[in-house]
Amino acid sequence: MFMHNKRLQYTVRVSEPNPRLACLLLEQFGGADGELAAAMRYFTQGLGEEDAGRKDMLLDIATEELSHLEVIGSIIAMLNKGAKAQLSEGQLAEAELYSMVGQTGTSAKESLLFGGGPALIDSAGVPWTAAYVDTRSEPTVDLRSNIAAESRAKIVYERLINITDDPGIKDALGFLMTREIAHQKSFEKALYSIEDNFPPGKLPGVEKYSNMYVNTSQGEGDMTGPWNSGPQWDRIDDLTEVMPADDGDGLATVDLDSADAKVVAKMAARLASDATSDPTTGVDLGAGPGAGRVTDGDFGGAATIAEAPAMAEAAAKDERN
Amino acid sequence: MFMHNKRLQYTVRVSEPNPRLACLLLEQFGGADGELAAAMRYFTQGLGEEDAGRKDMLLDIATEELSHLEVIGSIIAMLNKGAKAQLSEGQLAEAELYSMVGQTGTSAKESLLFGGGPALIDSAGVPWTAAYVDTRSEPTVDLRSNIAAESRAKIVYERLINITDDPGIKDALGFLMTREIAHQKSFEKALYSIEDNFPPGKLPGVEKYSNMYVNTSQGEGDMTGPWNSGPQWDRIDDLTEVMPADDGDGLATVDLDSADAKVVAKMAARLASDATSDPTTGVDLGAGPGAGRVTDGDFGGAATIAEAPAMAEAAAKDERN
Amino acid sequence: MFMHNKRLQYTVRVSEPNPRLACLLLEQFGGADGELAAAMRYFTQGLGEEDAGRKDMLLDIATEELSHLEVIGSIIAMLNKGAKAQLSEGQLAEAELYSMVGQTGTSAKESLLFGGGPALIDSAGVPWTAAYVDTRSEPTVDLRSNIAAESRAKIVYERLINITDDPGIKDALGFLMTREIAHQKSFEKALYSIEDNFPPGKLPGVEKYSNMYVNTSQGEGDMTGPWNSGPQWDRIDDLTEVMPADDGDGLATVDLDSADAKVVAKMAARLASDATSDPTTGVDLGAGPGAGRVTDGDFGGAATIAEAPAMAEAAAKDERN
Amino acid sequence: MFMHNKRLQYTVRVSEPNPRLACLLLEQFGGADGELAAAMRYFTQGLGEEDAGRKDMLLDIATEELSHLEVIGSIIAMLNKGAKAQLSEGQLAEAELYSMVGQTGTSAKESLLFGGGPALIDSAGVPWTAAYVDTRSEPTVDLRSNIAAESRAKIVYERLINITDDPGIKDALGFLMTREIAHQKSFEKALYSIEDNFPPGKLPGVEKYSNMYVNTSQGEGDMTGPWNSGPQWDRIDDLTEVMPADDGDGLATVDLDSADAKVVAKMAARLASDATSDPTTGVDLGAGPGAGRVTDGDFGGAATIAEAPAMAEAAAKDERN
Amino acid sequence: MFMHNKRLQYTVRVSEPNPRLACLLLEQFGGADGELAAAMRYFTQGLGEEDAGRKDMLLDIATEELSHLEVIGSIIAMLNKGAKAQLSEGQLAEAELYSMVGQTGTSAKESLLFGGGPALIDSAGVPWTAAYVDTRSEPTVDLRSNIAAESRAKIVYERLINITDDPGIKDALGFLMTREIAHQKSFEKALYSIEDNFPPGKLPGVEKYSNMYVNTSQGEGDMTGPWNSGPQWDRIDDLTEVMPADDGDGLATVDLDSADAKVVAKMAARLASDATSDPTTGVDLGAGPGAGRVTDGDFGGAATIAEAPAMAEAAAKDERN
Amino acid sequence: MFMHNKRLQYTVRVSEPNPRLACLLLEQFGGADGELAAAMRYFTQGLGEEDAGRKDMLLDIATEELSHLEVIGSIIAMLNKGAKAQLSEGQLAEAELYSMVGQTGTSAKESLLFGGGPALIDSAGVPWTAAYVDTRSEPTVDLRSNIAAESRAKIVYERLINITDDPGIKDALGFLMTREIAHQKSFEKALYSIEDNFPPGKLPGVEKYSNMYVNTSQGEGDMTGPWNSGPQWDRIDDLTEVMPADDGDGLATVDLDSADAKVVAKMAARLASDATSDPTTGVDLGAGPGAGRVTDGDFGGAATIAEAPAMAEAAAKDERN
Repeated sequence: MFMHNKRLQYTVRVSEPNPRLACLLLEQFGGADGELAAAMRYFTQGLGEEDAGRKDMLLDIATEELSHLEVIGSIIAMLNKGAKAQLSEGQLAEAELYSMVGQTGTSAKESLLFGGGPALIDSAGVPWTAAYVDTRSEPTVDLRSNIAAESRAKIVYERLINITDDPGIKDALGFLMTREIAHQKSFEKALYSIEDNFPPGKLPGVEKYSNMYVNTSQGEGDMTGPWNSGPQWDRIDDLTEVMPADDGDGLATVDLDSADAKVVAKMAARLASDATSDPTTGVDLGAGPGAGRVTDGDFGGAATIAEAPAMAEAAAKDERN
Repeated sequence: MFMHNKRLQYTVRVSEPNPRLACLLLEQFGGADGELAAAMRYFTQGLGEEDAGRKDMLLDIATEELSHLEVIGSIIAMLNKGAKAQLSEGQLAEAELYSMVGQTGTSAKESLLFGGGPALIDSAGVPWTAAYVDTRSEPTVDLRSNIAAESRAKIVYERLINITDDPGIKDALGFLMTREIAHQKSFEKALYSIEDNFPPGKLPGVEKYSNMYVNTSQGEGDMTGPWNSGPQWDRIDDLTEVMPADDGDGLATVDLDSADAKVVAKMAARLASDATSDPTTGVDLGAGPGAGRVTDGDFGGAATIAEAPAMAEAAAKDERN
Repeated sequence: MFMHNKRLQYTVRVSEPNPRLACLLLEQFGGADGELAAAMRYFTQGLGEEDAGRKDMLLDIATEELSHLEVIGSIIAMLNKGAKAQLSEGQLAEAELYSMVGQTGTSAKESLLFGGGPALIDSAGVPWTAAYVDTRSEPTVDLRSNIAAESRAKIVYERLINITDDPGIKDALGFLMTREIAHQKSFEKALYSIEDNFPPGKLPGVEKYSNMYVNTSQGEGDMTGPWNSGPQWDRIDDLTEVMPADDGDGLATVDLDSADAKVVAKMAARLASDATSDPTTGVDLGAGPGAGRVTDGDFGGAATIAEAPAMAEAAAKDERN
Repeated sequence: MFMHNKRLQYTVRVSEPNPRLACLLLEQFGGADGELAAAMRYFTQGLGEEDAGRKDMLLDIATEELSHLEVIGSIIAMLNKGAKAQLSEGQLAEAELYSMVGQTGTSAKESLLFGGGPALIDSAGVPWTAAYVDTRSEPTVDLRSNIAAESRAKIVYERLINITDDPGIKDALGFLMTREIAHQKSFEKALYSIEDNFPPGKLPGVEKYSNMYVNTSQGEGDMTGPWNSGPQWDRIDDLTEVMPADDGDGLATVDLDSADAKVVAKMAARLASDATSDPTTGVDLGAGPGAGRVTDGDFGGAATIAEAPAMAEAAAKDERN
Repeated sequence: MFMHNKRLQYTVRVSEPNPRLACLLLEQFGGADGELAAAMRYFTQGLGEEDAGRKDMLLDIATEELSHLEVIGSIIAMLNKGAKAQLSEGQLAEAELYSMVGQTGTSAKESLLFGGGPALIDSAGVPWTAAYVDTRSEPTVDLRSNIAAESRAKIVYERLINITDDPGIKDALGFLMTREIAHQKSFEKALYSIEDNFPPGKLPGVEKYSNMYVNTSQGEGDMTGPWNSGPQWDRIDDLTEVMPADDGDGLATVDLDSADAKVVAKMAARLASDATSDPTTGVDLGAGPGAGRVTDGDFGGAATIAEAPAMAEAAAKDERN
Repeated sequence: MFMHNKRLQYTVRVSEPNPRLACLLLEQFGGADGELAAAMRYFTQGLGEEDAGRKDMLLDIATEELSHLEVIGSIIAMLNKGAKAQLSEGQLAEAELYSMVGQTGTSAKESLLFGGGPALIDSAGVPWTAAYVDTRSEPTVDLRSNIAAESRAKIVYERLINITDDPGIKDALGFLMTREIAHQKSFEKALYSIEDNFPPGKLPGVEKYSNMYVNTSQGEGDMTGPWNSGPQWDRIDDLTEVMPADDGDGLATVDLDSADAKVVAKMAARLASDATSDPTTGVDLGAGPGAGRVTDGDFGGAATIAEAPAMAEAAAKDERN
């Protein structure tokens, strides 16, 4: 059961209202790597976990992330406090309100739809979706996802700290960022305290495919590194070797019974294209005097930059008449 | 630039059509951990990468994932081949088609909307979304996300292998699953060949918060482990200690100029609730003879299981008249 | 700050595993009227609220909804416990697993992607979205939304109770359902303790439009009731009266400067359709021997039911050859 | 059956084109509380309604909301008329077009993708989703949702009126806002003309939980009001009383048969974490010379504001070399 | 199987970084008509296609679209190159970063979440969704969708070319735009080389409804053209003629068995509204001194423009006291 | 302005309730090619259209599609009528209700969340999204999209007709399907009555790229047809010819000023991978006794089918001990 104390986990001291900055911070409130995603990732894992130690850790961290959601949401509420009241009371001149609300985009939606309250949207105004939560109910998988998620959250906080100069906000973001570092360390400990955590799951891989590196992107810039060379790798540069990787014909087949085979043939016949025809098409019908028209010049590229404007000029003049 | 060869990376031999199984396999075609998500994760990273070695690796693996998308999509196409033709030609009796199409859900959508073709939806019929792609343009973050993503893909393939008994499909899924293992190994090598990869990004954490473990979930079941105990952790069990973690008052505040402060006060006054009132409400208006009605029994729980059906019985009898 | 105690707000006693029932209960975990939506609705309102009493109430109820999320998630985890382990250990025969996983749809996704853990999806497998959260930061609006949301949650619990016969689950759902009733009562009290709560907001309506009822749907079945008749309503049956409602011409116009007007005219001229032409179209090109074909019969309706199958029969026979 | 007359329900007179303002108004065209959401909410309710009076009312109001969608869409079309033509004809200099289109966000999408036409997106460019429609097919629930929805729409119109100074637009928005007030009144009448409308549905609540108020958020700021105090409430401040609310142990349990129990145990054993270990982790591997680095300073908070820039300065200088 | 060569299909020469322009170009990377949508549309069609010629064409064009995705993504990466590094290294002053990142919206999300890398979002920051892919597995349908999709992509490129003045970008966009024209021509050829491609599918239409044009929108502005007049059309202006179009009563009915009929009647009775009542409602409760207040003036429209500001002035003055 | 008459455009006579069939029909109510998508596509085009003839046609057809939405929604309401009442009154035994509601997926959501009313979801339960609406405000583009959309809707109706044997439903679907054919004909007429409709828009293509066909998919199965051969095509089989298509180096470059160049270099240096290292990785840490394990067998493919079960058997036996 959850309980709440009205004191925040970190004191929020905002220097002055700034609805635009509030929109940036929404990234960590209702964004992909924000605190709700973190809380829900660990909470759903914790509910289904059999290992008592991991379950405890997951609920500890999930609960802390809810407190972080409260901290970041409180910063946003403070940054919007003036704008919210001005909107509510409608006493500013239109121009002032218009400027405060933002001309389009997230800040407009924040003001017009959400009235300046913290909303579970990201910095572009996109609603939070549980598609961000990648719990898979296998601890050696989920802990890796958690490690990655903490890394992502850390870097987003770092970017936010860099663009903010309000010292109270910087402090609070610094606290939140550091906690992601601490959580990553916990998840790493939990992962490696499971013996035999790689590969995740129970089924082994097939030996001949597990050390193969397929060099599918070739040309100038082809490189080697520990990820594709050295004794543990069987690097394949001749792509026809892996086409197919097995000893088959590289085709997709299915055994159809005769009824299915017959109706597939019927469908194919009914919808066959006549590859030898040269039919008149809608394009031909639609080609008016200028239709299908092409230019033999570029659109202004390096080689033709001098002529291009002239061409456009001429075309424009032609059309103005 | 991409090129394509009509041979698959792995030969697809399907024993017989099975539209229901096809729906399960959609999870790896248009699902959260499917091959499109993988390809797009690495492709978007590769486009923006400055390190020539990682860029090459990312494009290699992205391109291979596209080939995997082709393999899994080809299996789905084979499993649906008969159903697709039967639907197209409309020659089955209704009952047969109805049964083939599925009564509701993914298989219905697969048949009715997508006509039996492979569609970028998951096994529940939800369209693929780029919200699954967690590229953040910071290699020490992205490589961790890639490691986690490969783990997730591995476990989903393992689950699919367990529920399938078509040997050709098992073989192809085994190949695909093993390649995820190999890719995870490459990404691990790439991560650890970046010196100083933790914490990700450039800003350090704040020392006093980086080793703190907050035991927010308490009660029977509280556990210790390497993730919260030992010399590196400063574990906090008395939650008031971290409420707030800094030396402030744990409140959220903002400095408002006098104009803003005035309008906030005005708004608050206008919308104040009268905490001393006991207003009549819509609930009171709506409470008819049976409204607001409650039962003093349970709904059939362990203790009252004997009486509950009788109660329901009686109520039902009452209503039947 | 949030805290957690490992005891649930209501004891969860599940009689036996039932992954299918778990999928139905997902509606209240990750569905539109589920507990996450409730918690986030009140939490976001609470963060931005100025009135101390309402803020306290909103955080109280938000926190309780998180505890409900935990209860419903725990039921789901129990119902899936066996299936999750069987999937993880892969020891069942394929047919058993196949049957357990479900053939398509939510239960497939629950098993294959989420491994049997509680996931923030609804009963059809659609991920939770913050589009469900309708906080608007105006208390006379938000409290009405809360009242409605509690009503919706109540009815969904009622439907779930009706389809479940596990007494422990019925008990827990009965508790959760009743709490929604209690919350609705709190929100009603809070709404009506704001004097002058209608219309919401500050701007008054325009008198002549505020009592007008427009009878836009006419024909047999036109009815009267307190919502459209009586002294307070000005009911309009002659629709031309409100077309337009003001004294204008009912057209949409904008004053363009001459530059804009000129380019609009140019665009209109360039893209004008020749209404007097009768052009050959793609349809004409595509009309093969059977194209554009129509039947003068119905598809089997009441009047023609006898002939319809024969017709289909004949057509089918024709095609089989 | 629907019919259409080319005159609008309210005359639209726009003073001058303004694509930015058009983007704000999209909130009521394709936004969460916009006219499509309203029309579809009442239309889906009307189709399934058994009560002839309510069905008539729902179709009346649904149809009127479609007319409102037309009014708001027409305003948007007028505001974009010049920009649309300029874009189409491509005669402006790049800088002018660039400025007209907007640099990023909604106005860019409106211009580039939608060509200046009214689009079913909100003011942040997010496509309309039926997740906004909360029809539940129970009239005492749906009417409450309708009352809330009309309140939300009213406040959004009020905010739009406040930021617009075009008198023709203000007039039309005033009409639309007032109609929401009138609709709310109709829905209230319809709700209360159902006797016994609370609690919604048919199942009563459990008495002992229906008057309980759980004070889950405590600390300074704890308040009382009619929503949690007075004779009708049983307020619980000692949270251990409701942990659990029933007389159980507050745990989640399920009865597993022996086969399931065995495989759960096996899974748990295989994936157990060794809580006594202190494993080396990826973090340890990744900690280069500066990794795991922390700072003992704040990021510039109130107390340390003087030093913080200096610290940053120094760090930056260090890095510039 | 896919392969990749590190050379692009078209050389990308960007004159200077411009993160704002990068956001506009995202429309063709992760937008509705962008290159991923194109590639996936043709790829999913190709996988399921039976006709060898069309299959080859679909895979050819799908593969080329992937190369276009790479070109457009590379332009975006170049435009963001400076901003990405500045963000990563955090050396700019806050104001500079703040201005570079953008104040809200897409460019903020691009910078803060995606770190300046190309992301699969559109110009408003909305993630790509497979809902854009309209493959239906019927070639006479899909080829029409492809023709339309190429047209849409063409016009979006045209709009982008018009707002850009970087010659290298204009060149590359001109190449991409032209390829859409070429692809449309291929799809048209493929459609019309299927004999008998209209109507799509196999079932004929019902004759009496296939030439009927229903003039549902009437009033000033009613027009004729080849789409609704001429010998092939049976135009219906008297709408009661098509209400219903068949010879029935225009009602919706279902045959219920007596058990169902009884319970429907019971439900209807329980939830009947009393159309003769005039109940007190929540609106009445909520109407304080100013509630339900209306104004008899307009909000500042053409007729009342002179008085409106005065009214607002007065109201405002009233409130300031 | 819209008006409504209570008679349907086509009489709906349903033989008996069938909630499962109702779920299939949702595809045309709230699905991608359903009637709401159609209505909104034409309505948004009509609002912004300058050509009076096309505007009239678009509003005519948009309005008719709303009437179709009403017809299909009414069929769904009739099919669900019994289930809705049984759910509402809660009088069936659990097993009956459970069976009626459906075990998981769309029918569960339809019953539990939507109470049996028609909901704007598709046959898999996914909410309708305006991402389905592809209006682009350029008539030669939009009319092609409309033609394609009508084709898609036609084929989905055909598939529904094939799986239904209720004669009244077949009749109504036949009517709706035929109207899509008629609408396609209107849109074709409108497209070709615009002279010079290809390529869409105003900018011509670049000549040298407009007739080029790039044979990017090669190998067995390479085909020719009118879409890639004949005098109008310049077919490129040697892919290095189009790599790049222009005369550049096929690389992506941007001119950076020296400040940007410096910081890019700094970032690259900081994050460089050491390609010559062979670092220990998390995989190495996680490799327990069985970790990194691979099998040299297949998973049961054609060649090894005899051994595979034995292997699995043995493994299972091993694990059972």
